[in-house]
Amino acid sequence: MKTIKDAVHDHIRVDDFALSLLDTPEMQRLRHIRQLGTAYLVYPSANHTRFEHSLGVYHLAVQALDNLGVAGIERDEVRAAALLHDVGHTPFSHNVEDIVEEHIGKRHDEVDDVLEGNVARVLEDRGLSPERVASLIRGEGKYGQLVSGELDVDRMDYLVRDAHHTGVPYGTIDNRRLVLELDFVDEELVLGEGNVQTAEALLLARALMHPTVYNHHVARISKAMLKRATERLIEDSVRAERVRRMDDHELVVALRKNEATAETGARLAERRLYKRAVWKPRDEVSDGALDAEPRALEREIAADADVEPHEVVVDVSTPPRMAETEASVVVDGEKKPLERVSRLVNTLRKVSEDEWRFGVYAPEEKLEDVRKSSERYV
Amino acid sequence: MKTIKDAVHDHIRVDDFALSLLDTPEMQRLRHIRQLGTAYLVYPSANHTRFEHSLGVYHLAVQALDNLGVAGIERDEVRAAALLHDVGHTPFSHNVEDIVEEHIGKRHDEVDDVLEGNVARVLEDRGLSPERVASLIRGEGKYGQLVSGELDVDRMDYLVRDAHHTGVPYGTIDNRRLVLELDFVDEELVLGEGNVQTAEALLLARALMHPTVYNHHVARISKAMLKRATERLIEDSVRAERVRRMDDHELVVALRKNEATAETGARLAERRLYKRAVWKPRDEVSDGALDAEPRALEREIAADADVEPHEVVVDVSTPPRMAETEASVVVDGEKKPLERVSRLVNTLRKVSEDEWRFGVYAPEEKLEDVRKSSERYV
Amino acid sequence: MKTIKDAVHDHIRVDDFALSLLDTPEMQRLRHIRQLGTAYLVYPSANHTRFEHSLGVYHLAVQALDNLGVAGIERDEVRAAALLHDVGHTPFSHNVEDIVEEHIGKRHDEVDDVLEGNVARVLEDRGLSPERVASLIRGEGKYGQLVSGELDVDRMDYLVRDAHHTGVPYGTIDNRRLVLELDFVDEELVLGEGNVQTAEALLLARALMHPTVYNHHVARISKAMLKRATERLIEDSVRAERVRRMDDHELVVALRKNEATAETGARLAERRLYKRAVWKPRDEVSDGALDAEPRALEREIAADADVEPHEVVVDVSTPPRMAETEASVVVDGEKKPLERVSRLVNTLRKVSEDEWRFGVYAPEEKLEDVRKSSERYV
Amino acid sequence: MKTIKDAVHDHIRVDDFALSLLDTPEMQRLRHIRQLGTAYLVYPSANHTRFEHSLGVYHLAVQALDNLGVAGIERDEVRAAALLHDVGHTPFSHNVEDIVEEHIGKRHDEVDDVLEGNVARVLEDRGLSPERVASLIRGEGKYGQLVSGELDVDRMDYLVRDAHHTGVPYGTIDNRRLVLELDFVDEELVLGEGNVQTAEALLLARALMHPTVYNHHVARISKAMLKRATERLIEDSVRAERVRRMDDHELVVALRKNEATAETGARLAERRLYKRAVWKPRDEVSDGALDAEPRALEREIAADADVEPHEVVVDVSTPPRMAETEASVVVDGEKKPLERVSRLVNTLRKVSEDEWRFGVYAPEEKLEDVRKSSERYV
Repeated sequence: MKTIKDAVHDHIRVDDFALSLLDTPEMQRLRHIRQLGTAYLVYPSANHTRFEHSLGVYHLAVQALDNLGVAGIERDEVRAAALLHDVGHTPFSHNVEDIVEEHIGKRHDEVDDVLEGNVARVLEDRGLSPERVASLIRGEGKYGQLVSGELDVDRMDYLVRDAHHTGVPYGTIDNRRLVLELDFVDEELVLGEGNVQTAEALLLARALMHPTVYNHHVARISKAMLKRATERLIEDSVRAERVRRMDDHELVVALRKNEATAETGARLAERRLYKRAVWKPRDEVSDGALDAEPRALEREIAADADVEPHEVVVDVSTPPRMAETEASVVVDGEKKPLERVSRLVNTLRKVSEDEWRFGVYAPEEKLEDVRKSSERYV
Repeated sequence: MKTIKDAVHDHIRVDDFALSLLDTPEMQRLRHIRQLGTAYLVYPSANHTRFEHSLGVYHLAVQALDNLGVAGIERDEVRAAALLHDVGHTPFSHNVEDIVEEHIGKRHDEVDDVLEGNVARVLEDRGLSPERVASLIRGEGKYGQLVSGELDVDRMDYLVRDAHHTGVPYGTIDNRRLVLELDFVDEELVLGEGNVQTAEALLLARALMHPTVYNHHVARISKAMLKRATERLIEDSVRAERVRRMDDHELVVALRKNEATAETGARLAERRLYKRAVWKPRDEVSDGALDAEPRALEREIAADADVEPHEVVVDVSTPPRMAETEASVVVDGEKKPLERVSRLVNTLRKVSEDEWRFGVYAPEEKLEDVRKSSERYV
Repeated sequence: MKTIKDAVHDHIRVDDFALSLLDTPEMQRLRHIRQLGTAYLVYPSANHTRFEHSLGVYHLAVQALDNLGVAGIERDEVRAAALLHDVGHTPFSHNVEDIVEEHIGKRHDEVDDVLEGNVARVLEDRGLSPERVASLIRGEGKYGQLVSGELDVDRMDYLVRDAHHTGVPYGTIDNRRLVLELDFVDEELVLGEGNVQTAEALLLARALMHPTVYNHHVARISKAMLKRATERLIEDSVRAERVRRMDDHELVVALRKNEATAETGARLAERRLYKRAVWKPRDEVSDGALDAEPRALEREIAADADVEPHEVVVDVSTPPRMAETEASVVVDGEKKPLERVSRLVNTLRKVSEDEWRFGVYAPEEKLEDVRKSSERYV
Repeated sequence: MKTIKDAVHDHIRVDDFALSLLDTPEMQRLRHIRQLGTAYLVYPSANHTRFEHSLGVYHLAVQALDNLGVAGIERDEVRAAALLHDVGHTPFSHNVEDIVEEHIGKRHDEVDDVLEGNVARVLEDRGLSPERVASLIRGEGKYGQLVSGELDVDRMDYLVRDAHHTGVPYGTIDNRRLVLELDFVDEELVLGEGNVQTAEALLLARALMHPTVYNHHVARISKAMLKRATERLIEDSVRAERVRRMDDHELVVALRKNEATAETGARLAERRLYKRAVWKPRDEVSDGALDAEPRALEREIAADADVEPHEVVVDVSTPPRMAETEASVVVDGEKKPLERVSRLVNTLRKVSEDEWRFGVYAPEEKLEDVRKSSERYV
């Protein structure tokens, strides 16, 4: 047993099997992928990585398995899935994954990196099936719920970790209690009796972290800029599959060096970010703008405003899914969906819809032109 | 007044002047330089940067200035110096600065970045002399002691910040008290009456962080590997002055791409680090080895062991200086050097000497050969 | 300036005037009154006192005053009111205050202890009017809002302090931000632009602390037992005015020693608490029970169940008022009531109504008898 | 399994056996005994109790037992001993135990409360021998070292708990690591390889907490006043055996009500403490004073100064024992005494001797008279 010191969970104990997985280049790469992408441009301390998050998820999964009394090969499979669940991530986490996946036609949890190569070899040496582990990562099967589901250990780690590293206090949910209270009822992962509040607190933490951190407009702008630049990089010269395997260092340097993206690369390096020309709730946005293909809309606005095409960025986010609202809790001895027993939970879903914003961003010096032109389309 | 959220000091308030300094590309670059270099290979959460540390030092400096009642231009100079004190840093902080400075013949606090360019312009717009600010960064003059001295706010920030991000509890000194108790006696910055223990605690925090974090053998090995590779990079193709202006992203990618350093670049990426062939306290090391030029010694051992020259790394660290032992404290109304009133402090100096180690590192598969050859020389 | 070390706010600085107030026997008495009454029977670490809370409220008030730029006599008045706001508290905080106040016909913020005696003398020595300070404690006037209003510093301290000492993470609101963002618009204390979430977080913290800590059924039971016993004590032998001046030590010992209350005194000492015979939401309680005078109802049920009168305790709590929902926030440059701009806030009010419970408690060995009899009445 | 929320260790899980022990009146009494006696007069938040400390020690003991693989009856015995180790404590913890024990001729770990009564019954129901458990509490036998020895879990809990509740940062030792690294070598409890620093940090935490908290002069004065008053109480009217069974509430009220102690009782309630007439290191105290019986010396000084006998308090503390210096650590595969492998440890012992002070205290208004008279004797 080796002990790894973690800023959130203190000491995390890992056995030789977990160590072998950690020692693969695929996992080590996660040391160089920031957990929150460009959020460090708003929260200077938010430099934590997918690597430490993966360790944290592993740690919570082991606690849940201990508590649920899961042993043998199933335990090893879940441990592996917890540790590996982010191994297929693109650089800058969720910031560029859409664009990369669109180009290569695969999601980050369709995890080649688990099915073949160094990771697969370590799994097979332990007598595990890489396919089984990959299916757990996709949330399939009874134990897949622990790794990716409404009550998975992934979100239990990231909320607390993001709070610790940003300094925002909202994410300090009662992790230990959540893990201790997980139970299976009819093969469904639920929270045991007396935990409606525990579940509500988890949801509230997410609901508060969203506008403050994940959806902060500066994080949204820098993410949209990064995304568009990565798209240009792919169209210009670098294969999407190559981008997918990069770490943050490599993508940053590629953006700075490539002619088509150097301007955005420098803007991100020096934090000279675009500003909001448009920032509207859904019911104020025209149907045309909602239905338009964002890049086509950008070209139209740019032409109208007489600016360079890359100087207009249209940002249509998907509202957070609030998966936890679908979780079940035991109330008076019976398994019930959280949204039926908690008045708060339904409100939180609506709150998250309220937060939705349609954004158009442009360089400060072009802001007025883009704003005027946008008015015709948005 | 803008407020920036920090994981250590919570809310840090910055005025327009401080914001203008923060907005220079020179300061923004520090967002991409890890505070502890390669220590994240031991402590996965240790990904914090020189940027957040600079903000923290600024915050503590403002508190000290408020408390000391320093106003006007001197206050602005000290604020600027606190914020800018690390602007000249090489990538990976202290890890490669020696090698770069050796090649360009300047120390990182001989701060061109303050004397000219964007930073100098912001200072001059405020009516400040860049030369004055640079001299404060070097610790000169009465107020220079606040920025770089035995009781400077630099160490007050980094000990607590490093503790927060590594998860090691030793660095949790009583910062607020230290800042409140600073005073000037005969132009010397001292701690007021009743603070011998406060000062001892600061020193102890450093004494405990050293072996556990800063001097951890894995941090030492990865740092030595990085240093040698950077040296080869400079000798091979990249100008030292260019390396100095890089951020971590650029140095990492340069090491991976350059033929002379690609092997070390990959090793650092995948954490396939060298191991210790030799690890000895000073009194067990031969005089010849102590006096030798490390790179010459490497070549001799490599030839003897019949391995590639870059497969032997000799690491002779300088013991930590323990500057705080020279600080003064007011005791019974009189200013006295801390080492005269504290039994602990003298011991800590010796403890830090005890920790000194002479290291020779090599790839795992060559370890025995290098060990045997080293015995002849070390 | 003296510095007092606090577990929540770290260093609290107090000047001679604040120290003189703290040094009065009236304020020192608060060192012996637990902030959360009997909640320590659920949360063993919840032993914090009204004294440390008063210091914390003082500390936050000073920060708010600094930020709002309030100086001179008004500043002194608010500081005094913040420090003194709980000086009239009965032992065990809110647990017995109703019963005492009912007997003496005064509320705890009708603060004799401020208007006369040692405290009044210190105030007058400073040139302050005890009447003015007392009116601020009652929340009157512009600055009274800071001490007792929808956004007062009282609740900012207690939520965080209760979280720290119980170990429940829900109360960790962003205090520093709240204090920095307070502003006056048309003489009303509001939160400035961009703080809807900050206000929501404050309300959520309260909404989550309520069921978990303040309204935990064991806290409710022990509080109801204490209240009834104190009532018997007053009716039996000890004047209500005397009880009001006691601290926890004196009330505990009085309950243990007095024949009429010794049984409850011993039960509280040994944590042999009554259990719930009835625990119902409002819509399941008969109108008769809701309208009945609780002690009359107790006698009826006790007679019916053939148990001692003091072995039935009827507990009808008032739902938490959620005063913060009435606070105002600046949105798009305009002052607006929080409940109009936040969907969450309306829900939270309903959530707090949902939590309301009607309880009947009895000794474990009589539980079935009392339960059966209760059914006829409740 | 029931879960108890603790401010330090978060969730503490207790089984039915531990719950039965907790439910005895003997253990419940510890809810009303402050862990640090009168230290709350210096640190207002230091109101934590022996009860929560006992739970914390139990929690750490279980972790150590898990890690050491101790099962069966030995495990139960150690668990019981950890939970019960303070059950025999007098009110106000160490403040009055000397005086009580002197009068009844027994130490607080000669634990009648374990050998008979409710606790003994619970132990016997579980098939355990009260005598065995009592011997573990006294630190006897292999497993007694875990409960009371150089590396016991008692000190691991109290240092961190005292830090949490006072707000003093020095006690934040790496508890989890200490517990994980405990091992038995030749029946001796030691810290495993690589833990010299871990042990040093534990000692340093104690060394820093001593002058700042435990030995703070205001804590010393109030403790000495409490001790003398308790002595008068015993001599006047209340049997020592009765005092021993009191909790803080009862002793406080007894002191306030009893004529011989009412003055001190009121002084402690209102924090009108004596001041230091004499405060000298050992080498400045005359042999006569060191050898004198403190109460005889008090009478002499009082007569000389012409003040009431109880207005002079002589306080001769015993220096902290620094038991941890005798602990062993594995170094290079061999068990070695910590003091042989750590330069720091020897210094710390001397530091703790340096801190020793001889005190004479008196009411502020008599201070000068007592000071002058003391000079003749001390």
